[in-house]
Amino acid sequence: MSSQTDQDPRLHAIKTNIRVVPNFPKPGIMFQDITTLLLDPKAFKDTIDLFVERYKAKNISVVAGIEARGFIFGPPIALAIGAKFVPLRKPKKLPGKVISQEYTLEYGSDCLEMHVGAVEPGERALVVDDLIATGGTLCAAMDLLERVGAEVVECACVIELPELKGRERLNGKPLYVLVEYLEI
Amino acid sequence: MSSQTDQDPRLHAIKTNIRVVPNFPKPGIMFQDITTLLLDPKAFKDTIDLFVERYKAKNISVVAGIEARGFIFGPPIALAIGAKFVPLRKPKKLPGKVISQEYTLEYGSDCLEMHVGAVEPGERALVVDDLIATGGTLCAAMDLLERVGAEVVECACVIELPELKGRERLNGKPLYVLVEYLEI
Repeated sequence: MSSQTDQDPRLHAIKTNIRVVPNFPKPGIMFQDITTLLLDPKAFKDTIDLFVERYKAKNISVVAGIEARGFIFGPPIALAIGAKFVPLRKPKKLPGKVISQEYTLEYGSDCLEMHVGAVEPGERALVVDDLIATGGTLCAAMDLLERVGAEVVECACVIELPELKGRERLNGKPLYVLVEYLEI
Repeated sequence: MSSQTDQDPRLHAIKTNIRVVPNFPKPGIMFQDITTLLLDPKAFKDTIDLFVERYKAKNISVVAGIEARGFIFGPPIALAIGAKFVPLRKPKKLPGKVISQEYTLEYGSDCLEMHVGAVEPGERALVVDDLIATGGTLCAAMDLLERVGAEVVECACVIELPELKGRERLNGKPLYVLVEYLEI
Protein backbone atom coordinates (compact mmCIF):
# COMPACT_ATOMS: atom_id res chain seq x y z
CA MET A 1 0.00 0.00 0.00
CA SER A 2 1.63 3.20 -1.18
CA SER A 3 -0.99 5.77 -0.21
CA GLN A 4 0.04 8.13 2.58
CA THR A 5 -3.31 9.73 3.29
CA ASP A 6 -2.98 9.28 7.04
CA GLN A 7 0.70 10.16 7.35
CA ASP A 8 1.49 13.52 5.78
CA PRO A 9 -0.49 16.64 6.75
CA ARG A 10 -0.08 18.05 3.24
CA LEU A 11 -2.27 15.29 1.82
CA HIS A 12 -5.44 16.55 3.48
CA ALA A 13 -5.28 19.88 1.65
CA ILE A 14 -4.49 18.10 -1.61
CA LYS A 15 -7.50 15.82 -1.26
CA THR A 16 -9.90 18.59 -0.30
CA ASN A 17 -8.80 20.64 -3.31
CA ILE A 18 -9.78 17.90 -5.76
CA ARG A 19 -13.33 18.46 -6.97
CA VAL A 20 -15.73 15.66 -7.80
CA VAL A 21 -17.96 16.43 -10.82
CA PRO A 22 -20.85 13.96 -11.12
CA ASN A 23 -21.88 12.55 -14.50
CA PHE A 24 -18.83 13.63 -16.51
CA PRO A 25 -17.96 12.67 -19.20
CA LYS A 26 -21.08 10.49 -19.12
CA PRO A 27 -23.90 9.62 -16.71
CA GLY A 28 -22.79 7.65 -13.67
CA ILE A 29 -19.13 8.72 -13.72
CA MET A 30 -17.91 10.73 -10.73
CA PHE A 31 -15.10 12.71 -12.40
CA GLN A 32 -12.10 13.56 -10.22
CA ASP A 33 -11.20 17.11 -11.28
CA ILE A 34 -7.62 18.15 -10.48
CA THR A 35 -8.04 21.63 -12.02
CA THR A 36 -9.28 22.91 -8.66
CA LEU A 37 -6.08 21.63 -7.03
CA LEU A 38 -4.09 23.75 -9.50
CA LEU A 39 -5.94 26.87 -8.28
CA ASP A 40 -4.30 26.57 -4.84
CA PRO A 41 -0.59 27.34 -5.37
CA LYS A 42 0.36 25.88 -1.97
CA ALA A 43 -1.54 22.61 -2.51
CA PHE A 44 -0.20 22.27 -6.08
CA LYS A 45 3.35 22.87 -4.84
CA ASP A 46 2.85 20.32 -2.03
CA THR A 47 1.67 17.79 -4.62
CA ILE A 48 4.83 18.21 -6.67
CA ASP A 49 7.04 18.30 -3.57
CA LEU A 50 5.67 14.95 -2.34
CA PHE A 51 6.60 13.31 -5.62
CA VAL A 52 10.00 15.01 -5.74
CA GLU A 53 10.84 13.91 -2.20
CA ARG A 54 10.06 10.34 -3.19
CA TYR A 55 11.98 10.29 -6.49
CA LYS A 56 14.91 12.69 -6.09
CA ALA A 57 17.34 9.98 -4.91
CA LYS A 58 16.06 7.17 -7.16
CA ASN A 59 18.37 7.84 -10.11
CA ILE A 60 15.49 8.43 -12.53
CA SER A 61 16.58 9.81 -15.91
CA VAL A 62 13.17 9.98 -17.66
CA VAL A 63 9.80 11.28 -16.53
CA ALA A 64 7.14 10.18 -19.02
CA GLY A 65 3.87 12.12 -18.81
CA ILE A 66 0.60 10.97 -20.34
CA GLU A 67 -1.42 13.46 -22.43
CA ALA A 68 -2.93 15.73 -21.31
CA ARG A 69 -3.06 15.98 -17.50
CA GLY A 70 0.19 14.06 -17.10
CA PHE A 71 1.78 17.06 -18.85
CA ILE A 72 0.77 19.23 -15.90
CA PHE A 73 2.37 17.10 -13.17
CA GLY A 74 5.27 15.45 -15.02
CA PRO A 75 7.40 18.44 -16.09
CA PRO A 76 7.73 20.05 -12.62
CA ILE A 77 8.85 16.68 -11.24
CA ALA A 78 11.33 16.17 -14.10
CA LEU A 79 12.79 19.65 -13.63
CA ALA A 80 13.21 19.18 -9.88
CA ILE A 81 14.95 15.80 -10.12
CA GLY A 82 17.05 16.69 -13.19
CA ALA A 83 15.41 14.16 -15.52
CA LYS A 84 14.28 14.59 -19.10
CA PHE A 85 10.56 14.88 -19.81
CA VAL A 86 9.02 12.67 -22.50
CA PRO A 87 5.40 13.32 -23.54
CA LEU A 88 3.31 10.25 -24.39
CA ARG A 89 0.67 11.51 -26.78
CA LYS A 90 -2.49 10.62 -28.61
CA PRO A 91 -1.98 9.50 -32.24
CA LYS A 92 -0.75 11.97 -34.87
CA LYS A 93 0.32 14.62 -32.36
CA LEU A 94 4.07 13.93 -32.26
CA PRO A 95 5.88 15.20 -35.38
CA GLY A 96 8.83 12.78 -35.45
CA LYS A 97 9.04 9.03 -35.95
CA VAL A 98 7.04 7.26 -33.23
CA ILE A 99 6.27 3.89 -31.74
CA SER A 100 2.62 3.25 -30.91
CA GLN A 101 0.85 1.16 -28.31
CA GLU A 102 -2.85 0.40 -28.54
CA TYR A 103 -4.85 -0.40 -25.44
CA THR A 104 -8.41 -1.40 -24.73
CA LEU A 105 -11.00 0.76 -23.02
CA GLU A 106 -14.37 -0.25 -21.64
CA TYR A 107 -15.77 0.30 -25.12
CA GLY A 108 -13.29 0.31 -27.99
CA SER A 109 -9.59 1.12 -27.91
CA ASP A 110 -7.15 4.01 -27.75
CA CYS A 111 -3.48 4.52 -28.52
CA LEU A 112 -0.42 6.24 -27.06
CA GLU A 113 2.67 7.27 -29.02
CA MET A 114 6.27 8.06 -28.05
CA HIS A 115 9.05 9.58 -30.14
CA VAL A 116 11.68 7.11 -31.29
CA GLY A 117 15.01 8.13 -29.76
CA ALA A 118 13.50 9.99 -26.83
CA VAL A 119 14.39 7.19 -24.39
CA GLU A 120 17.55 5.06 -24.55
CA PRO A 121 17.91 1.42 -23.53
CA GLY A 122 18.75 1.11 -19.83
CA GLU A 123 17.20 4.40 -18.76
CA ARG A 124 15.23 4.47 -15.51
CA ALA A 125 11.74 5.86 -16.08
CA LEU A 126 8.91 7.24 -13.98
CA VAL A 127 5.41 7.29 -15.52
CA VAL A 128 3.18 10.18 -14.41
CA ASP A 129 -0.54 10.76 -14.81
CA ASP A 130 -3.19 12.50 -12.74
CA LEU A 131 -5.31 9.41 -12.04
CA ILE A 132 -5.36 5.62 -12.28
CA ALA A 133 -8.74 4.09 -13.04
CA THR A 134 -8.62 0.68 -14.75
CA GLY A 135 -4.87 1.04 -15.42
CA GLY A 136 -5.06 0.55 -19.18
CA THR A 137 -3.37 3.81 -20.06
CA LEU A 138 -0.54 3.28 -17.57
CA CYS A 139 0.04 -0.22 -18.97
CA ALA A 140 0.33 1.17 -22.50
CA ALA A 141 2.79 3.80 -21.25
CA MET A 142 4.94 1.17 -19.53
CA ASP A 143 4.83 -1.02 -22.63
CA LEU A 144 6.19 1.84 -24.77
CA LEU A 145 9.06 2.47 -22.36
CA GLU A 146 9.94 -1.20 -21.97
CA ARG A 147 9.80 -1.81 -25.73
CA VAL A 148 12.73 0.62 -26.14
CA GLY A 149 14.66 -1.03 -23.30
CA ALA A 150 13.94 1.34 -20.44
CA GLU A 151 13.22 0.17 -16.90
CA VAL A 152 10.00 1.52 -15.41
CA VAL A 153 10.82 2.28 -11.78
CA GLU A 154 7.29 3.26 -10.75
CA CYS A 155 4.02 4.80 -11.86
CA ALA A 156 2.98 7.93 -9.97
CA CYS A 157 -0.54 9.35 -9.89
CA VAL A 158 -2.26 11.96 -7.78
CA ILE A 159 -5.46 9.91 -7.45
CA GLU A 160 -6.36 6.22 -7.37
CA LEU A 161 -9.85 4.75 -7.72
CA PRO A 162 -9.19 1.48 -5.86
CA GLU A 163 -12.53 -0.10 -6.72
CA LEU A 164 -11.54 -0.24 -10.39
CA LYS A 165 -8.55 -2.45 -9.47
CA GLY A 166 -6.13 -0.74 -11.87
CA ARG A 167 -3.28 -1.52 -9.49
CA GLU A 168 -3.76 -5.25 -10.13
CA ARG A 169 -3.39 -4.72 -13.87
CA LEU A 170 0.12 -3.23 -13.61
CA ASN A 171 1.87 -6.64 -13.64
CA GLY A 172 3.58 -6.05 -10.33
CA LYS A 173 5.01 -2.64 -11.21
CA PRO A 174 4.94 -0.33 -8.18
CA LEU A 175 2.25 2.33 -8.12
CA TYR A 176 2.47 5.39 -5.87
CA VAL A 177 -0.57 7.58 -5.32
CA LEU A 178 -1.24 10.53 -3.07
CA VAL A 179 -4.97 10.14 -2.48
CA GLU A 180 -7.64 7.49 -2.98
CA TYR A 181 -11.22 8.11 -3.87
CA LEU A 182 -13.47 5.33 -2.64
CA GLU A 183 -17.03 6.30 -3.57
CA ILE A 184 -17.30 5.73 -7.29
CA MET B 1 11.22 43.63 -29.67
CA SER B 2 11.19 41.17 -26.80
CA SER B 3 13.45 38.43 -28.13
CA GLN B 4 16.77 38.12 -26.33
CA THR B 5 18.54 35.73 -28.71
CA ASP B 6 21.68 37.82 -28.79
CA GLN B 7 21.80 38.69 -25.10
CA ASP B 8 21.58 35.59 -22.90
CA PRO B 9 23.96 32.67 -23.43
CA ARG B 10 21.27 30.20 -22.33
CA LEU B 11 19.21 31.02 -25.40
CA HIS B 12 21.66 29.43 -27.83
CA ALA B 13 21.28 26.00 -26.22
CA ILE B 14 17.52 26.40 -26.10
CA LYS B 15 17.36 27.22 -29.80
CA THR B 16 19.67 24.39 -30.87
CA ASN B 17 17.58 21.89 -28.87
CA ILE B 18 14.41 22.73 -30.81
CA ARG B 19 14.04 20.35 -33.74
CA VAL B 20 12.49 21.35 -37.04
CA VAL B 21 10.37 18.59 -38.62
CA PRO B 22 9.53 19.34 -42.27
CA ASN B 23 6.05 18.67 -43.65
CA PHE B 24 4.22 18.16 -40.35
CA PRO B 25 1.29 18.14 -39.83
CA LYS B 26 0.93 18.74 -43.58
CA PRO B 27 3.18 19.33 -46.60
CA GLY B 28 4.99 22.66 -46.55
CA ILE B 29 4.85 23.20 -42.78
CA MET B 30 8.20 23.31 -40.94
CA PHE B 31 7.07 22.10 -37.52
CA GLN B 32 8.96 23.49 -34.51
CA ASP B 33 9.28 20.52 -32.17
CA ILE B 34 9.92 21.41 -28.53
CA THR B 35 9.95 17.76 -27.40
CA THR B 36 13.69 17.61 -28.13
CA LEU B 37 14.21 20.62 -25.83
CA LEU B 38 12.54 18.65 -23.03
CA LEU B 39 15.13 15.87 -23.45
CA ASP B 40 17.91 18.20 -22.25
CA PRO B 41 17.21 18.82 -18.53
CA LYS B 42 19.57 21.82 -18.43
CA ALA B 43 18.06 23.50 -21.49
CA PHE B 44 14.52 22.83 -20.27
CA LYS B 45 15.38 24.28 -16.85
CA ASP B 46 16.99 27.31 -18.49
CA THR B 47 13.80 27.83 -20.51
CA ILE B 48 11.66 27.89 -17.37
CA ASP B 49 14.21 30.00 -15.47
CA LEU B 50 14.19 32.69 -18.16
CA PHE B 51 10.43 33.03 -17.86
CA VAL B 52 10.52 32.93 -14.06
CA GLU B 53 13.18 35.66 -13.91
CA ARG B 54 10.97 37.86 -16.06
CA TYR B 55 7.69 37.27 -14.19
CA LYS B 56 8.61 36.65 -10.55
CA ALA B 57 8.24 40.30 -9.54
CA LYS B 58 5.28 41.17 -11.78
CA ASN B 59 2.56 40.30 -9.27
CA ILE B 60 0.98 37.67 -11.53
CA SER B 61 -1.69 35.55 -9.83
CA VAL B 62 -2.73 33.34 -12.77
CA VAL B 63 -0.71 31.42 -15.34
CA ALA B 64 -3.05 30.21 -18.11
CA GLY B 65 -1.63 27.42 -20.27
CA ILE B 66 -3.02 26.43 -23.65
CA GLU B 67 -3.65 22.72 -24.36
CA ALA B 68 -1.53 20.73 -24.81
CA ARG B 69 2.04 22.06 -25.00
CA GLY B 70 1.21 25.09 -22.88
CA PHE B 71 0.57 22.55 -20.10
CA ILE B 72 4.26 21.59 -20.22
CA PHE B 73 5.67 25.11 -19.79
CA GLY B 74 2.94 26.83 -17.76
CA PRO B 75 2.86 24.78 -14.54
CA PRO B 76 6.58 25.05 -13.72
CA ILE B 77 6.34 28.82 -14.17
CA ALA B 78 3.21 29.02 -12.01
CA LEU B 79 4.81 26.95 -9.25
CA ALA B 80 7.96 29.08 -9.24
CA ILE B 81 6.16 32.43 -9.05
CA GLY B 82 3.44 31.24 -6.64
CA ALA B 83 0.55 31.68 -9.07
CA LYS B 84 -2.37 29.39 -9.77
CA PHE B 85 -2.38 27.39 -13.00
CA VAL B 86 -5.47 27.46 -15.20
CA PRO B 87 -5.67 25.07 -18.17
CA LEU B 88 -7.36 26.40 -21.31
CA ARG B 89 -8.66 23.32 -23.08
CA LYS B 90 -10.24 22.02 -26.24
CA PRO B 91 -14.05 21.63 -26.11
CA LYS B 92 -15.63 19.00 -23.84
CA LYS B 93 -12.44 18.28 -21.86
CA LEU B 94 -13.16 20.38 -18.77
CA PRO B 95 -15.73 18.76 -16.45
CA GLY B 96 -17.16 21.88 -14.79
CA LYS B 97 -19.12 24.84 -16.13
CA VAL B 98 -17.09 26.62 -18.82
CA ILE B 99 -16.96 29.70 -20.97
CA SER B 100 -15.96 29.12 -24.59
CA GLN B 101 -14.17 31.20 -27.18
CA GLU B 102 -14.15 30.27 -30.84
CA TYR B 103 -11.39 31.42 -33.13
CA THR B 104 -10.63 31.13 -36.81
CA LEU B 105 -7.87 29.08 -38.33
CA GLU B 106 -6.56 29.16 -41.87
CA TYR B 107 -9.29 26.66 -42.77
CA GLY B 108 -12.23 26.40 -40.38
CA SER B 109 -12.35 27.27 -36.69
CA ASP B 110 -11.41 25.94 -33.28
CA CYS B 111 -12.44 26.66 -29.71
CA LEU B 112 -10.86 27.08 -26.27
CA GLU B 113 -12.66 26.64 -22.95
CA MET B 114 -11.97 27.83 -19.40
CA HIS B 115 -13.64 26.81 -16.15
CA VAL B 116 -16.04 29.38 -14.73
CA GLY B 117 -14.71 30.52 -11.35
CA ALA B 118 -11.09 29.63 -12.07
CA VAL B 119 -10.13 33.28 -12.54
CA GLU B 120 -11.54 36.20 -10.55
CA PRO B 121 -12.11 39.76 -11.79
CA GLY B 122 -9.00 41.89 -11.31
CA GLU B 123 -6.51 39.03 -11.38
CA ARG B 124 -3.26 39.55 -13.30
CA ALA B 125 -2.74 36.79 -15.86
CA LEU B 126 0.12 35.42 -17.93
CA VAL B 127 -0.78 33.35 -21.02
CA VAL B 128 1.70 30.57 -21.88
CA ASP B 129 2.09 28.46 -25.03
CA ASP B 130 5.02 26.86 -26.78
CA LEU B 131 4.72 28.81 -30.02
CA ILE B 132 3.03 31.80 -31.63
CA ALA B 133 2.18 31.38 -35.30
CA THR B 134 -0.73 33.52 -36.54
CA GLY B 135 -1.72 34.42 -32.98
CA GLY B 136 -5.31 33.18 -33.19
CA THR B 137 -5.06 30.81 -30.25
CA LEU B 138 -3.39 33.41 -28.01
CA CYS B 139 -6.12 35.91 -28.89
CA ALA B 140 -8.81 33.43 -27.89
CA ALA B 141 -6.98 32.76 -24.62
CA MET B 142 -6.76 36.49 -23.85
CA ASP B 143 -10.44 36.94 -24.73
CA LEU B 144 -11.42 34.24 -22.20
CA LEU B 145 -9.40 35.87 -19.44
CA GLU B 146 -10.61 39.38 -20.20
CA ARG B 147 -14.25 38.27 -20.39
CA VAL B 148 -14.08 37.27 -16.70
CA GLY B 149 -12.43 40.58 -15.77
CA ALA B 150 -8.79 39.53 -15.55
CA GLU B 151 -5.94 41.68 -16.85
CA VAL B 152 -3.60 39.93 -19.28
CA VAL B 153 -0.12 41.15 -18.36
CA GLU B 154 1.69 39.39 -21.20
CA CYS B 155 1.76 36.37 -23.49
CA ALA B 156 4.86 34.19 -23.20
CA CYS B 157 5.98 31.66 -25.81
CA VAL B 158 9.18 29.74 -26.37
CA ILE B 159 9.11 30.27 -30.15
CA GLU B 160 7.85 32.96 -32.51
CA LEU B 161 7.43 32.64 -36.26
CA PRO B 162 7.73 36.34 -37.11
CA GLU B 163 6.80 35.94 -40.78
CA LEU B 164 3.26 34.93 -39.77
CA LYS B 165 2.81 38.31 -38.02
CA GLY B 166 0.97 36.87 -35.01
CA ARG B 167 2.42 39.63 -32.85
CA GLU B 168 0.44 42.22 -34.82
CA ARG B 169 -2.80 40.37 -34.09
CA LEU B 170 -2.48 40.65 -30.30
CA ASN B 171 -4.10 44.10 -30.14
CA GLY B 172 -1.10 45.69 -28.49
CA LYS B 173 -0.73 43.11 -25.72
CA PRO B 174 2.94 42.46 -24.95
CA LEU B 175 4.43 39.23 -26.27
CA TYR B 176 7.64 37.78 -24.90
CA VAL B 177 9.43 35.00 -26.78
CA LEU B 178 12.74 33.27 -26.24
CA VAL B 179 13.63 32.36 -29.82
CA GLU B 180 12.51 33.24 -33.32
CA TYR B 181 12.46 30.96 -36.28
CA LEU B 182 12.78 32.86 -39.53
CA GLU B 183 12.84 30.27 -42.33
CA ILE B 184 9.26 29.04 -42.63
